[in-house]
Amino acid sequence: MTEASGPTRVPKGLAGVSVTDTKISKSDRDGSLVYRGYPIADLAANAGFEETAYLILNGRMPTKSQLASFSRGLQAREKVGKNLFGIMEQLGRRAHPIDVIRTSVSALGSLDKEDSTEGKEMSIEAKMSILAANCLRVPRGDPPRLPREGLGFSDNLLQMLTGRKAEEYESWVFERVLIFYMEHDMNASSFTVRVVASTLADPYAAAAAGLASLKGPLHGGANEAAMKMLLDVKDPAKAREFLQTSFNEGRKVMGFGHRVYKEFDPRARLCKGFLKEMLRRRGGDDTLYRLCDAIERGMWEAKRIPPNLDYYAAPIFYLLGIDVPLYTPIFSASRVFGWMAHYNEQVEENKLIRPDALYVGPTGLKYTSIEKRRP
Amino acid sequence: MTEASGPTRVPKGLAGVSVTDTKISKSDRDGSLVYRGYPIADLAANAGFEETAYLILNGRMPTKSQLASFSRGLQAREKVGKNLFGIMEQLGRRAHPIDVIRTSVSALGSLDKEDSTEGKEMSIEAKMSILAANCLRVPRGDPPRLPREGLGFSDNLLQMLTGRKAEEYESWVFERVLIFYMEHDMNASSFTVRVVASTLADPYAAAAAGLASLKGPLHGGANEAAMKMLLDVKDPAKAREFLQTSFNEGRKVMGFGHRVYKEFDPRARLCKGFLKEMLRRRGGDDTLYRLCDAIERGMWEAKRIPPNLDYYAAPIFYLLGIDVPLYTPIFSASRVFGWMAHYNEQVEENKLIRPDALYVGPTGLKYTSIEKRRP
Repeated sequence: MTEASGPTRVPKGLAGVSVTDTKISKSDRDGSLVYRGYPIADLAANAGFEETAYLILNGRMPTKSQLASFSRGLQAREKVGKNLFGIMEQLGRRAHPIDVIRTSVSALGSLDKEDSTEGKEMSIEAKMSILAANCLRVPRGDPPRLPREGLGFSDNLLQMLTGRKAEEYESWVFERVLIFYMEHDMNASSFTVRVVASTLADPYAAAAAGLASLKGPLHGGANEAAMKMLLDVKDPAKAREFLQTSFNEGRKVMGFGHRVYKEFDPRARLCKGFLKEMLRRRGGDDTLYRLCDAIERGMWEAKRIPPNLDYYAAPIFYLLGIDVPLYTPIFSASRVFGWMAHYNEQVEENKLIRPDALYVGPTGLKYTSIEKRRP
Repeated sequence: MTEASGPTRVPKGLAGVSVTDTKISKSDRDGSLVYRGYPIADLAANAGFEETAYLILNGRMPTKSQLASFSRGLQAREKVGKNLFGIMEQLGRRAHPIDVIRTSVSALGSLDKEDSTEGKEMSIEAKMSILAANCLRVPRGDPPRLPREGLGFSDNLLQMLTGRKAEEYESWVFERVLIFYMEHDMNASSFTVRVVASTLADPYAAAAAGLASLKGPLHGGANEAAMKMLLDVKDPAKAREFLQTSFNEGRKVMGFGHRVYKEFDPRARLCKGFLKEMLRRRGGDDTLYRLCDAIERGMWEAKRIPPNLDYYAAPIFYLLGIDVPLYTPIFSASRVFGWMAHYNEQVEENKLIRPDALYVGPTGLKYTSIEKRRP
């Protein structure tokens, strides 16, 4: 069929091309996002990280005992062996955090002793949190920070990232941000995971490939870039001047715009509220909120472009005392649950993802050897 | 546009969907394959590995001085540091060869000191050959086999794989097989490389992702599986019986069939001739050739399916004394040149590869928390 009619041509970058059916999540232009049918605001109000992860992976909310068993499964795998920390250390203090996590997850594919696909996935999910928290520390020779017994996924990640336990409301907010980062229908890394999964490679290979695509500035790093920008502008009164200069010089304003959301990103809107409340509870200086708000208003007035999740996740991470280079690793520690859901969905009704290309190069050339001859 | 008209739906696995223009290579149903316009038989007769690699990467054949400079560039990077061998060793003797190479290339992204994209690519190309040859030895604690001065890419890889220098004709044949494995228009790993490249991730990330997809049995491992089958059948007189049993039991006959070539795979045909000549020059037992030929004839008569490159590369590697688990690593050591050509072509006129998916899951669900409450 293909040969007879010639290959189907599609827009570059597969923009607007639906490559698969999915039951995992759906984002909509009007600012709605659902995970497995549940609106994101509902999950933000009522669900914990583990419940949402279970939902994303299994397609339905857990019962109490399913949730307990899932959480135990993750906790049982929250161990990173000496070999793996040793490999991280050998990568050296100048190693890029995402490279460190990618190499570690790749190595885990050889070091791990899991038999089942589900066990492998849970091991990756549990350990990526430890890898994310330690991807700067261990390569520079600092002792790793490890999970503590009795804490959930989100609290553990946060205490590993900062070295201390956060106040209750702030822990709750951090968990919301993780929930928001967990999944977002088709995107560059989830698609990469599906392409690798379609060869029936194992979850380690697929997760390593997802991390490989996250290394690219067109996919990863946006929350870090947004924070650097906010720290740079600093003063809410300078927001307009900053935007004008950015427009004049053709510089991208970080943390704005989204392929899907044209009016607002529901996750950003929720995070904006959390940021305001965090500052209120801290009882004082709301400069950071006013700064974010001023740039947001300026962007909307000038360009009608709304902020995205990265824009409001960044100042929350900042207030929590997390080092900026760890923001994308945090994203990966949560998104890996979405990746594994895509892995499973791909493998379940698999067909190798193997597109065509249109050859537009030369033809009919003839080579006269410059040195090699048949013996 | 997309939102108004809904996403374009395409066949599953992107079969027959042309996702990009390419000037790198083209395979055709009629059994033709060109690299940058040169027919594969022409290259097999007249070109060396480095010339072909230069061609694939640069789009034209090198002059003598360009070839010398390209070869020097590769040779200068044929060094793997102690850190990297150390990481390979820590993966342990049971590590899968492709996992070892993937983790090593990923780690190279942190350990390498190259500045330019071209330097990074040449470093990956030069070192993957050493990684491929040592991906079994080093993890089990054997000393690495290293490149020798004065040998070209192909001869060096072969001596590292086997521990000795091959006879001249056999070296020449090995180089042909490497040339055949170097590139094959769009395929699962090259597409993976392009997806990752489209995020503007670096070549280490892209190559690691290519290796991730090669871990999957639907893409990698075919030459190894073909050899195991040949060793299993052993006797040409048993070919028909073996095929009949395979058909009856619905078992796949390894090394047959190709997405593009329906009449014959030009690379397999050339390799078949090389295999025959290798055995003739060895002056004796041609059982292996007769075995291959008998299964090939039986498959054609029964199913009209021709053998592919993997089917005839395997017995050549076997005669050269290469361990079967190294066959896919050899593939990767050559294919990485094609991957890097795809990386460059993608990045040159880049657009993020970010498809859509059609949500077919539930909607409008409402969650009542089972435990979490807002603090």
